[in-house]
Amino acid sequence: MQQEFKKEINKAEILVEALGYMQKYEGDIVVIKYGGSAMTNEIIKKSVLKDIAVLKSVGLKPIIVHGGGKDINRMLDRVQIKSEFKNGLRVTDRDTLEIAEMVLSGKINKGLVTHLEQIGTHAVGLSGKDGNMITVEKVMPQGEDIGFVGKITHVDTTLINTLLDQGYTPIVSTIGLDEKYHAYNINADDVATAIARAVKASKLVFLTDIEGVLEDPNNPETLISKIDTESAKELFESGIITGGMIPKLKNCLEAVQNDVKRVHILDGRLEHSLLIEIFTKKGVGTMIKR
Amino acid sequence: MQQEFKKEINKAEILVEALGYMQKYEGDIVVIKYGGSAMTNEIIKKSVLKDIAVLKSVGLKPIIVHGGGKDINRMLDRVQIKSEFKNGLRVTDRDTLEIAEMVLSGKINKGLVTHLEQIGTHAVGLSGKDGNMITVEKVMPQGEDIGFVGKITHVDTTLINTLLDQGYTPIVSTIGLDEKYHAYNINADDVATAIARAVKASKLVFLTDIEGVLEDPNNPETLISKIDTESAKELFESGIITGGMIPKLKNCLEAVQNDVKRVHILDGRLEHSLLIEIFTKKGVGTMIKR
Amino acid sequence: MQQEFKKEINKAEILVEALGYMQKYEGDIVVIKYGGSAMTNEIIKKSVLKDIAVLKSVGLKPIIVHGGGKDINRMLDRVQIKSEFKNGLRVTDRDTLEIAEMVLSGKINKGLVTHLEQIGTHAVGLSGKDGNMITVEKVMPQGEDIGFVGKITHVDTTLINTLLDQGYTPIVSTIGLDEKYHAYNINADDVATAIARAVKASKLVFLTDIEGVLEDPNNPETLISKIDTESAKELFESGIITGGMIPKLKNCLEAVQNDVKRVHILDGRLEHSLLIEIFTKKGVGTMIKR
Amino acid sequence: MQQEFKKEINKAEILVEALGYMQKYEGDIVVIKYGGSAMTNEIIKKSVLKDIAVLKSVGLKPIIVHGGGKDINRMLDRVQIKSEFKNGLRVTDRDTLEIAEMVLSGKINKGLVTHLEQIGTHAVGLSGKDGNMITVEKVMPQGEDIGFVGKITHVDTTLINTLLDQGYTPIVSTIGLDEKYHAYNINADDVATAIARAVKASKLVFLTDIEGVLEDPNNPETLISKIDTESAKELFESGIITGGMIPKLKNCLEAVQNDVKRVHILDGRLEHSLLIEIFTKKGVGTMIKR
Amino acid sequence: MQQEFKKEINKAEILVEALGYMQKYEGDIVVIKYGGSAMTNEIIKKSVLKDIAVLKSVGLKPIIVHGGGKDINRMLDRVQIKSEFKNGLRVTDRDTLEIAEMVLSGKINKGLVTHLEQIGTHAVGLSGKDGNMITVEKVMPQGEDIGFVGKITHVDTTLINTLLDQGYTPIVSTIGLDEKYHAYNINADDVATAIARAVKASKLVFLTDIEGVLEDPNNPETLISKIDTESAKELFESGIITGGMIPKLKNCLEAVQNDVKRVHILDGRLEHSLLIEIFTKKGVGTMIKR
Amino acid sequence: MQQEFKKEINKAEILVEALGYMQKYEGDIVVIKYGGSAMTNEIIKKSVLKDIAVLKSVGLKPIIVHGGGKDINRMLDRVQIKSEFKNGLRVTDRDTLEIAEMVLSGKINKGLVTHLEQIGTHAVGLSGKDGNMITVEKVMPQGEDIGFVGKITHVDTTLINTLLDQGYTPIVSTIGLDEKYHAYNINADDVATAIARAVKASKLVFLTDIEGVLEDPNNPETLISKIDTESAKELFESGIITGGMIPKLKNCLEAVQNDVKRVHILDGRLEHSLLIEIFTKKGVGTMIKR
Repeated sequence: MQQEFKKEINKAEILVEALGYMQKYEGDIVVIKYGGSAMTNEIIKKSVLKDIAVLKSVGLKPIIVHGGGKDINRMLDRVQIKSEFKNGLRVTDRDTLEIAEMVLSGKINKGLVTHLEQIGTHAVGLSGKDGNMITVEKVMPQGEDIGFVGKITHVDTTLINTLLDQGYTPIVSTIGLDEKYHAYNINADDVATAIARAVKASKLVFLTDIEGVLEDPNNPETLISKIDTESAKELFESGIITGGMIPKLKNCLEAVQNDVKRVHILDGRLEHSLLIEIFTKKGVGTMIKR
Repeated sequence: MQQEFKKEINKAEILVEALGYMQKYEGDIVVIKYGGSAMTNEIIKKSVLKDIAVLKSVGLKPIIVHGGGKDINRMLDRVQIKSEFKNGLRVTDRDTLEIAEMVLSGKINKGLVTHLEQIGTHAVGLSGKDGNMITVEKVMPQGEDIGFVGKITHVDTTLINTLLDQGYTPIVSTIGLDEKYHAYNINADDVATAIARAVKASKLVFLTDIEGVLEDPNNPETLISKIDTESAKELFESGIITGGMIPKLKNCLEAVQNDVKRVHILDGRLEHSLLIEIFTKKGVGTMIKR
Repeated sequence: MQQEFKKEINKAEILVEALGYMQKYEGDIVVIKYGGSAMTNEIIKKSVLKDIAVLKSVGLKPIIVHGGGKDINRMLDRVQIKSEFKNGLRVTDRDTLEIAEMVLSGKINKGLVTHLEQIGTHAVGLSGKDGNMITVEKVMPQGEDIGFVGKITHVDTTLINTLLDQGYTPIVSTIGLDEKYHAYNINADDVATAIARAVKASKLVFLTDIEGVLEDPNNPETLISKIDTESAKELFESGIITGGMIPKLKNCLEAVQNDVKRVHILDGRLEHSLLIEIFTKKGVGTMIKR
Repeated sequence: MQQEFKKEINKAEILVEALGYMQKYEGDIVVIKYGGSAMTNEIIKKSVLKDIAVLKSVGLKPIIVHGGGKDINRMLDRVQIKSEFKNGLRVTDRDTLEIAEMVLSGKINKGLVTHLEQIGTHAVGLSGKDGNMITVEKVMPQGEDIGFVGKITHVDTTLINTLLDQGYTPIVSTIGLDEKYHAYNINADDVATAIARAVKASKLVFLTDIEGVLEDPNNPETLISKIDTESAKELFESGIITGGMIPKLKNCLEAVQNDVKRVHILDGRLEHSLLIEIFTKKGVGTMIKR
Repeated sequence: MQQEFKKEINKAEILVEALGYMQKYEGDIVVIKYGGSAMTNEIIKKSVLKDIAVLKSVGLKPIIVHGGGKDINRMLDRVQIKSEFKNGLRVTDRDTLEIAEMVLSGKINKGLVTHLEQIGTHAVGLSGKDGNMITVEKVMPQGEDIGFVGKITHVDTTLINTLLDQGYTPIVSTIGLDEKYHAYNINADDVATAIARAVKASKLVFLTDIEGVLEDPNNPETLISKIDTESAKELFESGIITGGMIPKLKNCLEAVQNDVKRVHILDGRLEHSLLIEIFTKKGVGTMIKR
Repeated sequence: MQQEFKKEINKAEILVEALGYMQKYEGDIVVIKYGGSAMTNEIIKKSVLKDIAVLKSVGLKPIIVHGGGKDINRMLDRVQIKSEFKNGLRVTDRDTLEIAEMVLSGKINKGLVTHLEQIGTHAVGLSGKDGNMITVEKVMPQGEDIGFVGKITHVDTTLINTLLDQGYTPIVSTIGLDEKYHAYNINADDVATAIARAVKASKLVFLTDIEGVLEDPNNPETLISKIDTESAKELFESGIITGGMIPKLKNCLEAVQNDVKRVHILDGRLEHSLLIEIFTKKGVGTMIKR
């Protein structure tokens, strides 16, 4: 009979294998920066959202933070607003912000809610405006005014905690208010990090389109699996970390030194990378810890 | 000295005058269908939102439901989608729905949240998708398919009640999901009525651009102040109620016969009509009760 | 139409004006020492109690402490007990105390309860005996025994907090027990101050029959609106503060240095002075802060 | 050694004997009408209050209701108000009521609080005014106006339950308010019965100065130990029950038919009659049950 | 890269596959009658307990009921007590009962607790004595006294619910008390059924050493997968169900007609039969429903 | 009449006498090490358990810890396992441990539960395995391996506190688990002390078969009633304390210096020694305090 049920027994064994991880992470908050392929590739998208639904079902508490680059561009094109960038940041005038917010809070955000609800996980779509959750101030890179681009000065966790306590999965779009209640667009990585720190998340996960932190950016074989405060110092000094990875990694290190236990830079292009990272021995991408 | 403080004493007396109403309505839920001038005229808008903030501060629990007709039209124009109507209902194909939802949930909804937060009232912007709050089925007026236009079949009040209990004011946009998790646009009056019934609201208020129910639609002097189940019957039979007011009034009557105490059709063009109706003896518009 | 509703709009605007104050003080405890004209003048009395009912309705938590000088004298006269005073304190033998307590706890206290209940605010009349709330020791001014006059050594806030949490407004008469469970009369200002400190009140208000702290006691024009720890020092040194105001002010300063945010010495002869002080920009009397 | 501790062992055995009763009545509410010798004889008074403290300590929830006949008379004499009675009821004009209330709520009530606090049981003294607990209407015996004498129309148990839940023992004086918030004196037996029914008391105990219900009022040997609905009928029909006992017994029967489990008419002149009745096999007085 | 992670992706997919079942059964109580091979075969034992730990971790609430036939026999042998049976029931004198209880509550019960704790699931070992959980009366099969063998008359769920609410998994041995507090041994199937009904379990699972209900007891191929109230009737009438299966099936039918949703007769000899039954489409054994 | 009720009045007076103690110890946790005559003598046993039931009923929270020396020996004899001792500790191989655990957790523990339930006190029998309550490590006296004898390294109070909060009396047998989940037998005095410290018990009581700490072990007249940290020092230095009393007393002193208020070494051979010690002025045995 064992033979007849071979496949089912195998499935059960995999559930049993996951048991230790379920118990270890029970009740832990995981903030997931959702973006890249996970957002644009429908297959990956489904796989990611199902992973999140599984995390919720076995006792973790996920929070999703999303950006929306490509959809915003597409909509700006449709309404014939030209995109301008300075130092890699989008110049965001009132018109651009209005379109960006509609796409972020009205399309992508509620779209993710729908997907999670369809899988059976109750979700609530929020922006940083709701419950005055995210307060920002204007960013002036090199003293230049690039419009309504904000830097987070405060996260109020009351609303998020209310929803988590009632079993909802919050999904957050990257719009915040300054002290005069003007809206600003914010970098999604920053929102995820700020929320993770404010709610003292156990894990902060960046779903990216790279393998993780690489010694040689052109060679995926040179993936660095683990970085801690000390090894990070060496990486910076030796000049291995370069370009856009410098601020990203600094951000991660600051998080693990402030209430967040672990940060993961995952390859979102890999199906089920979230579950593989959290529920198997095999790591995916780079893990940063104290 | 009384003289010196005459103005302040007068203010205090007005607060004292409102006391009886505050005590009477303490803890009551008020669902407000927000639309018309209250949405388009900036002065009226501020006055309405401040009224709602006062209601919240003196112990009532407001819920706001909004539509977004003109803003949707404007955006459809910008992206060159032609509006088509059948039997007064907008033909809503996938493209139209996408724009409508962005405007409703991404612009108007979060804009109202910002306004209330600025006044000091904590608000949360929701659509019927969040927490699977509003379930709909396709409307087929006279058997004709007009796209993603939905009729409410169920309201799940869990999320709204969670937020009310924690002191938040929910603001709801008129998008719902059918059983297959497709999005639909819904008539705002219907959303307000369905939510009012589901949460057993004490009051359901329609902010409109008319004086109320009139005996002669062309003569504001013929306002009918109060309608109950019985007098409504006569009004219908005598043919006084005509046109679009027939389904509206039937809707109101059904509400007061099902868990809602009173329905108010208010003239939203009048500043502070909400506070005047609830906190003074002078009625504004038409009140419908059992 | 605006014209027709001019008066009502004005009322609504005043409620809106009060909104900021309601939000600012929501949930704050206010201890009110009730006495003087507010007790003897029926018009002022009603105005004060309505003010307190408004405070309660818009979210503050009032506690009332009252004395009862004139009623006690009148009752002592009726039963032919002679009043004797030493150093401004009533010599209080067992007989005097019995009458004083009956008047305080049986007449004035329950009379205030009735008034508040009539206005629609649920109140509970207590003395310092109930729940062993106020513990005292015998006062021996200049070593002289003047009978059952007590000084507060401890306030147990359990009962008061239970009642506040359930939405009741506590009204406290000035009788306490010593460690052997003998009853004592206590100065009402001291009871108000001790309770305000024990419950960490946001505001402690003395309703008096003076304009406030005056530079020249004979000239109401010389009212000092605000006193803080530093300016108080100067006032004492310069000899401006004299007589009975010295201990009173010292008492207030001690309160603001211990858990109470602000102390107000209000002119209780002015109608609605409480609401004017708390809900308008125009201050009444003297405000003492750290 | 057993010998040396003989007395202590005996004490322990008595505690053990009481165990079954403690477990049986744990959490039960007992309303005690306190009056007669229990009020006037200092030894009995102490014994009764200690009994009540024991009931509270072993897990029951006592509520005390008291009258105050003799003290009221004495005070009326002191202020030279003449007592007038019609049909056994005191004619109660405004002046008489004022004195009665001061004695009841200001002297006896707070005196009982002090006694219980001294024994270590936290008590709160209330009148029917507090929290609008007791609502009455004017009594007009045989159509005659005898002033402010009231009949209970409603008991609001919110305040009493709040206090019981927090471990306080409520002590209630017999003053209530009518719908226009005028104060009235009420018969203490009626107050005890009305409260017992409203809180669904397990036991209602009348501490009286008689042995209980007697077949021959002049012969204490003819005590009737138990009365139920049926035997009561016979007693009434056979004419054994006469005079003032008729309405008293009817009252008791109504109570046991409405939410109260047992009514006890105890001989309050017997020391510790309360504990003896509740914690020993030997009954004291008459017990009425369904 | 997908290739490299093939095995892990497969594992994740299996977790995702289980998602629907996790959501469906979240919060449901499952009573598991543990016995047969699951008790005697160490490999099966570990597999069963891990299955239970998984159920607990993904949100179900398991309760385990165990017997202990073979261990009891072994211990009776060691102390040279002869086993005697009448009508298939063990004659249980005082001596036999003492040994049986020690083995059940002292060895098997605490052994299962240890196993679950070791896997990381907090468990509490109880017998029907604890908290007076199981009340029994003496069984007299055909009027014959066979000693301390009991039939359940009442299950008090207070203790079990307290433990479930706090996240503990209760493990229950089959000893109960009669009204005179004498201990009795009880049939384990009956204990499982009685507890399942008392806690209104969603599922009652019998882990047995047979394939399930078979049309031909000698042919495992004739397994009946589903039985409902109606088909059961036919099975009884047609004489297919025979022998010991008759009372067992009647018991199951009574359970599904009284608060239990589904009863499963599982083949405990199959590894992970519990997880396979609950988390895959492939059924194991026979399922009985209304 | 007083005469007729003389006996009952006396009983009531004893309850009243106990009142002060009930109030003083309300809500206090008392850990009772149960052993010696209290375990072997049926009369004493009943008296002790009734005492514990009384403690529970008047508001204390008892926890019982028991050993089981004689019963274990008897059972080892029956299964012909030879008892071996080294340095006063039983050499505990796997076989011995199995028998010891069955006797402790399956017989004595559940027997005590039955006794308390019979008296009307809800009890739950636990071993240190349940909820992973007691963690131990192997004891190696003078480096010698004597088998499964453990020393406590950690007490997890979650389960005990859950049960106390719900009104259950926990009864604990002396089996714990090491970090690899092997079972160990533990000294009962150590278990009682460790639990008392972990739950911050008000009292820790050892029921022993001696009079208490004696100056001359052969002369009961030389009982030392009270020992505090200082006098203990002298007792040790003067050599009065000798033999097995040295570690026992050191243990007690450590307890009173760590969260336990008082330790009592009581003569368990005296009937009701528990109640006499706690509820009368007459002390029994030796009391150790800081």
